[in-house]
Amino acid sequence: MQPDQTFHMTTDEFRYFGKELIDWIADYYQNIEGYPVLSQVEPGEIRASLPPSPPKKGVSFDEIISDIDRLIMPGITHWQSPNFFAFFPANTSGPSILAELLSAGLGVQGMSWSTSPACTELETHVLDWLAEMLGLPERFMSHTAGGGVIQDTASSATLSALLVARERATNYASNEEGCNGRLVAYASTQTHSSIEKAVKISGLGSKNLRLIEVDDDFAMRPDALASQIHADREAGLIPCFVCATVGTTSSNALDPVQEIGIVCEKEDIWLHVDAAMSGTAALCPEFRYILDGLELADSFCFNPHKWMFTNFDCDCFYVANRAALIQTLSVLPEYLRNKATESGAVIDYRDWHVQLGRRFRSLKLWFVIRHYGVEGLRYHVRQHIELAQQFAAWVGKDPDFELAAPTPLNLVCFRHKAGDEFNRQLLDKINHSGKIYMTHTSLNDRYTLRLCVGQTNTEEQHVQQAWELLCLTASKMQQF
Amino acid sequence: MQPDQTFHMTTDEFRYFGKELIDWIADYYQNIEGYPVLSQVEPGEIRASLPPSPPKKGVSFDEIISDIDRLIMPGITHWQSPNFFAFFPANTSGPSILAELLSAGLGVQGMSWSTSPACTELETHVLDWLAEMLGLPERFMSHTAGGGVIQDTASSATLSALLVARERATNYASNEEGCNGRLVAYASTQTHSSIEKAVKISGLGSKNLRLIEVDDDFAMRPDALASQIHADREAGLIPCFVCATVGTTSSNALDPVQEIGIVCEKEDIWLHVDAAMSGTAALCPEFRYILDGLELADSFCFNPHKWMFTNFDCDCFYVANRAALIQTLSVLPEYLRNKATESGAVIDYRDWHVQLGRRFRSLKLWFVIRHYGVEGLRYHVRQHIELAQQFAAWVGKDPDFELAAPTPLNLVCFRHKAGDEFNRQLLDKINHSGKIYMTHTSLNDRYTLRLCVGQTNTEEQHVQQAWELLCLTASKMQQF
Repeated sequence: MQPDQTFHMTTDEFRYFGKELIDWIADYYQNIEGYPVLSQVEPGEIRASLPPSPPKKGVSFDEIISDIDRLIMPGITHWQSPNFFAFFPANTSGPSILAELLSAGLGVQGMSWSTSPACTELETHVLDWLAEMLGLPERFMSHTAGGGVIQDTASSATLSALLVARERATNYASNEEGCNGRLVAYASTQTHSSIEKAVKISGLGSKNLRLIEVDDDFAMRPDALASQIHADREAGLIPCFVCATVGTTSSNALDPVQEIGIVCEKEDIWLHVDAAMSGTAALCPEFRYILDGLELADSFCFNPHKWMFTNFDCDCFYVANRAALIQTLSVLPEYLRNKATESGAVIDYRDWHVQLGRRFRSLKLWFVIRHYGVEGLRYHVRQHIELAQQFAAWVGKDPDFELAAPTPLNLVCFRHKAGDEFNRQLLDKINHSGKIYMTHTSLNDRYTLRLCVGQTNTEEQHVQQAWELLCLTASKMQQF
Repeated sequence: MQPDQTFHMTTDEFRYFGKELIDWIADYYQNIEGYPVLSQVEPGEIRASLPPSPPKKGVSFDEIISDIDRLIMPGITHWQSPNFFAFFPANTSGPSILAELLSAGLGVQGMSWSTSPACTELETHVLDWLAEMLGLPERFMSHTAGGGVIQDTASSATLSALLVARERATNYASNEEGCNGRLVAYASTQTHSSIEKAVKISGLGSKNLRLIEVDDDFAMRPDALASQIHADREAGLIPCFVCATVGTTSSNALDPVQEIGIVCEKEDIWLHVDAAMSGTAALCPEFRYILDGLELADSFCFNPHKWMFTNFDCDCFYVANRAALIQTLSVLPEYLRNKATESGAVIDYRDWHVQLGRRFRSLKLWFVIRHYGVEGLRYHVRQHIELAQQFAAWVGKDPDFELAAPTPLNLVCFRHKAGDEFNRQLLDKINHSGKIYMTHTSLNDRYTLRLCVGQTNTEEQHVQQAWELLCLTASKMQQF
């Protein structure tokens, strides 16, 4: 970015256009409720408006910026709209956006400690902070044999956990000999799809994934888990991995970590706890109970990029035994050797996940935690949960709607009583209105609507409008 | 970011601090040569200066910004310094930094087409642009049965390629049944460490990775590959995957893709071509030869985040048969079902890689390609290669130094003639001077220095200063 005539953006241009883009983003947030939440374009519509061939000569940055509104925005589904209630959120905040900017500006690649010591040490530090903030067991903190690392997503964290479990169960032979076809993994029928993906990727095979039945609240039954483990051992198989979910994606069910942990401890099986969205609730003492029993887990992950105002991607993955993780994932070619690594005095996070290279993502947590303070983060978590509880109360009182699952935190699962097809059409109409965006799931084989309150700027009026829109739309549908 | 008293950064604050940070970044690039390239801190030094506990109450953003210089910068190794010659570069540019900012500001999560159609369609589009720009075979473009996707790193792309290869070789049974212990993968002795990591992760096992011997230029010998495949078949094993490297990390060796491709085609084995850094050179017609034979490959990847002015992470991964990739990695739970997906008219990129969630990374390519134009990108690639060639010429002419490998592009491998220990100390002194940063490798069991010219702002004077520093330091060392 030196001023020159060699196609680079000059430093002055960077200042000018950077500030223009900052204003563009601020304007976007001020006007965000004016956009349809779910993009209304048809397949192929965005592509059709793009220049068919790459430009031989560069275009002005003015044009690039003005093309955002013209070419990109029609195809945006607004995850940062306060009217976004779909899936789980992927919320963000001003401090997080600015941290991502700083990370891009510094442009460091923190694969090894020495390739930017601050990238590694700040990460270790804020992951210890988070362990303290969530009341995680001491065994996940860096002064013990454990520690935390930022992964991109819970999918990658789960895969990493499964790989260590696989190695531990085979005395680190699977890495060398390949999978033996006898290793078995366990999760509930309500578990996230990333578990199935991980057992496929890791060579266990999906036939060796046992989906354990759940109770009436969609939480894993520890007795059913224990029986299945016994049956598998009897059959000569090797149980190696259990994933308990704290806040399932379908219905936010809370698997009983404590009881599952006792089973795993007795059976010497790796227990991973996936609290991707709901883990953030443990910031508040009154919701910390969702992690009861976590001291029995071997690994844990939650995603600040879902509900902690930290933009995607940022999954925090903790293990109680970091040596096992490193032994599983470490590969050290000559071109990566360096004195700091050989000294053993440093962490090289490249050995803690699938990828080699890594961004400076801890800046996002550093900015967000320092900006909000624990107090500010708790305030918003409590607000979101309170709003979801309020919505659940409205559903519960309405003669036409019913709750489809318990609402422990910020996700409400419900349905209109008029049946699956009605609910499907209701959701479709709601989403195509552009006013709010919600998604669905299936619970007990019934089509179920999900409303998750977790976007940074969602306030009472947004939840109220959502409920009014649902009631109005349903009542119009019934008139025909 | 609405103005409120609820801990959020207000829109006005975002404008103010955002612009301050833009200026901070511009200042950083103007002053970057004043920093030691390799951070000079000791292990633990950064952490020791950080507040031990998370803040109960938030701090002012002024303080957060001023702490960048105070707490973070001493621990930065400056990947964006024009004096960074280590590893392969991870370069960036003004347009790319601003695209990352926009991506963070929009905060969309593009796992499915419908969760932001622009995120998917812009990605498909610019990957087709790049295919055109690099002269990739038509089979990798989206109007055929193939197509491209952005992955985080080449490690993840390689893993994905290996997984499809594994499934194809077992008629898609490994995903279900688990690995069978008989699948074999091939790469040269000079291949990247991510291949070993991938065979471990995927359950093939490292004993089933064959490292094929190389010729005098460190390129894979196709005859040796063919012999090994035959020997493995004789032994009842199932060869499934070959990785050819275009520009190895150690020495930038170019595996003969054409000849390897002929072997793979005859043997019906998946051929993946890893051109992580060097692929960018194919932008220039005179260097396009490095990809000769690519029409025989099943998959290909290169990293614009290395040498194409696009900040980490951005790996472009192409397959000739996208259905095979999707069949390997697709998992579709109810909560992700939607009309667009069921219509079959759209791409859901979540099925093209390990993770579920994904950022809007194509904005970086869109900004960079449009800003520079093909012309601007070619200009810098040519400059870098020319500078490396010049450096190699200086080494070649110097009586004290020697080249350790051919220099086809922008990486020079060389050593002082005084032996391994001398070179080790020379590198150490150079890096601790803070003036430049270089790394090493081992070639033919000899300690070898690597100088890679690829940082965005590296110009002739930087390469010249690097050479002078090397000569001066070596001559001082010899005086003692």
